[in-house]
This record gives sequence, structure tokens and C-alpha cells, in this order.
Amino acid sequence: MDTFIEPIGRLINQFSKLPGVGKKTAQRYAYKIIDMSAEDARLFAESILDCKSKVRYCRVCGNFSEEDTCEICKKRDGSVICVVKEPKDVIALEKLREFKGVYHVLHGVISPMDGIGPNDIRIKELLERLSGGVTEVIIATNPDVEGDATAMYIAKLLKPLGVCVTRLAHGIPIGGEIEYTDEVTLSRAFIERKII
Amino acid sequence: MDTFIEPIGRLINQFSKLPGVGKKTAQRYAYKIIDMSAEDARLFAESILDCKSKVRYCRVCGNFSEEDTCEICKKRDGSVICVVKEPKDVIALEKLREFKGVYHVLHGVISPMDGIGPNDIRIKELLERLSGGVTEVIIATNPDVEGDATAMYIAKLLKPLGVCVTRLAHGIPIGGEIEYTDEVTLSRAFIERKII
Repeated sequence: MDTFIEPIGRLINQFSKLPGVGKKTAQRYAYKIIDMSAEDARLFAESILDCKSKVRYCRVCGNFSEEDTCEICKKRDGSVICVVKEPKDVIALEKLREFKGVYHVLHGVISPMDGIGPNDIRIKELLERLSGGVTEVIIATNPDVEGDATAMYIAKLLKPLGVCVTRLAHGIPIGGEIEYTDEVTLSRAFIERKII
Repeated sequence: MDTFIEPIGRLINQFSKLPGVGKKTAQRYAYKIIDMSAEDARLFAESILDCKSKVRYCRVCGNFSEEDTCEICKKRDGSVICVVKEPKDVIALEKLREFKGVYHVLHGVISPMDGIGPNDIRIKELLERLSGGVTEVIIATNPDVEGDATAMYIAKLLKPLGVCVTRLAHGIPIGGEIEYTDEVTLSRAFIERKII
């Protein structure tokens, strides 16, 4: 006989598809499901189906949304747009409760190595949004090669249109120690030093 | 507005119930579900429901089973019973393909600290099985206080009945190094040393 009976084996396989989950962890998760009440398991399965069926992307900004247009696009100040790579970046920024404008999710970054060009991400859609009185575009792509390239590309496109284009500051993280800061970050912090 | 829209927040909550999964990991899992095809998400949800509804415990040994009596109890040599704490221990032992007998899952160990006595685990059911020509009972509870206590308790019960009671050997793990072996294991290996 197989080590696992069929329903358990199948569930372990499903859990193994989650990021960073190996066979052992998937096994633990499957045992947890077996230990749950039938009602809890039903709620679990239901929330997977619900999440898949109810969550789509906002027609305007590309963020997760239950409706055609997301709550942020509906209610907030549209004159400042913060450009991010993925919907989860929106969530990270929203946690700050700092930014009062709207977002634009690119759903990727320019990466010639992976064959992803400017037309493969939502840059065209960003340009289309600029007609409506946008004064500033904050680019919040990751500080890596692809993120930098994408930021530069967008900045070049937007500047001739008279929009102020800014980017998140890079430097030593607050609470970090200079001794342990990596060289690239440290040299960036040096170059971008500010008068106090 | 909340950081997460409702279906995503709910799914994150569900994933947080899995052992060792915090908010961040649950978030990653939820994103993965959103990125899946609708078909894959359906299969995932279905396998949770299936696992919960189809898996029960074998009437005889207490192991996971799809039927009233499990495949192991039906087909294998019933004269040797290996006693384990949980169904997952059966899986670990089955992987060896070494043992040809049957199992008995206690579904717990004696633990006075947690208020678990001999009557709270499947010891009575074990005694009932002994009438059918059982020659050996191998006790494979964990080598900790509760596992040891349970093993001693069962051994005391069974010995008067003329059943050979054995326990898995303890000692230095194969491939382990004496230098790094913990003291308890090392002293146990000393005490239980064998003539070669």
C-alpha cells in the first residue's frame, strides 16, 4: 500500500503547491485539516473558493478588488499616483496610513532577461490615467536592477508631460546599524546624503 | 478601509490556523491561491473537503482509513502489534517497509500533567485485541517522559498475559556524532551497550 491513503496524499500534494511548503510541512497541514471539525474544514475550503471567485483586479489601478473599481480609486485623491509592481506592495504601503492618493499596479517590472518589455506591464494604462489632473507620480518599485530600470523608463516617459515624478528614498533602514548595512545601500546613502 | 479586502482577509485568517503559519506566511499562501487558475483552486478546496469527509479511523487499529477497517489490518500478519501514539507515527514506520505486522494507535499517551490517564487513550482496545493469537507487542511511543510512562504501563499490563513486549531501541542515531549527541541519549546508549 502507499504510505498515505488517497485523500490524505492528494491533500498533501495540494499543500505542497504553496510557496515554500515541502512534503513534511504539507503533511503537518494535512493532519491539521483532519483534526479540524467538519465545519471548520468547510469554511476553509469555502474561503479558498470565495477568494478565487470574488477577487479580481480593479479596472483603473490593477489592485485587488471585489468590484470593477476598487475602494481606493473610488474614494481617494486621484491627483497623486503611486506606482508599484504588485498588488501586495499596495497592501504594504496601505499599512502605513500615510499615503492619501491612489495607486497604479504594473503587474510586473521591465526585465529583458525574462523577456518582459514595457508593453508587457501596465505602463500604457498608466499613461492613459495622466489626463485627469495628475500632479505627481511616485514610483515605488523595488530597489533592484529591474525596479530601477522600470522607474527610469517611466520617469523618461512622464517628464515631457509635465508631471512631477518622484521615487521612494533609499538609504540606511531606520533602526539599522551602519556596521551591518550592505555596501550598496551604504554608498547610496552617502550619495543621497541630505543637509540637516 | 481595511488593509485587505474581505475575501483575502478571510483566507489569510484560515491559513493562519495551520501549524506554524503566521500572518506573513498566510498572506503569501493567499496570494498563491489568487494566482492559481480557478480549476486549481477548486481542486485545492475539494481535496480539503474530501480529506475531511473520507478519512476516518480504522475500527481495529485506530489508524487513518477510508473504510471501516484499514488495509493494514485487513491484509497483514496480526500476530505482531506495533503500538504508536498517533496515526502519523504509523506513516513514519510504514516508510521503512520493514515491519510486516499490524499497528495499534493509542491516540495519545498517558500524561497526568495534562489530565490524560490510561482510560483516555486506546489501551482497553489494545487489550481486547490480544485474544487473537498475538505473540509480540512492540511499543513505539516517543522516548520522552510521557512515552516512557505509557510504555511501562502497557508492559506491566501485558506481561502477565504471556505476550512478549518489546520497545524500540534507543541510542546514538546512525550518522550522528558522539561529540554532538545530547547527554541523555549518550548515557542511555552507554547503559544499553551491546556485546559485539
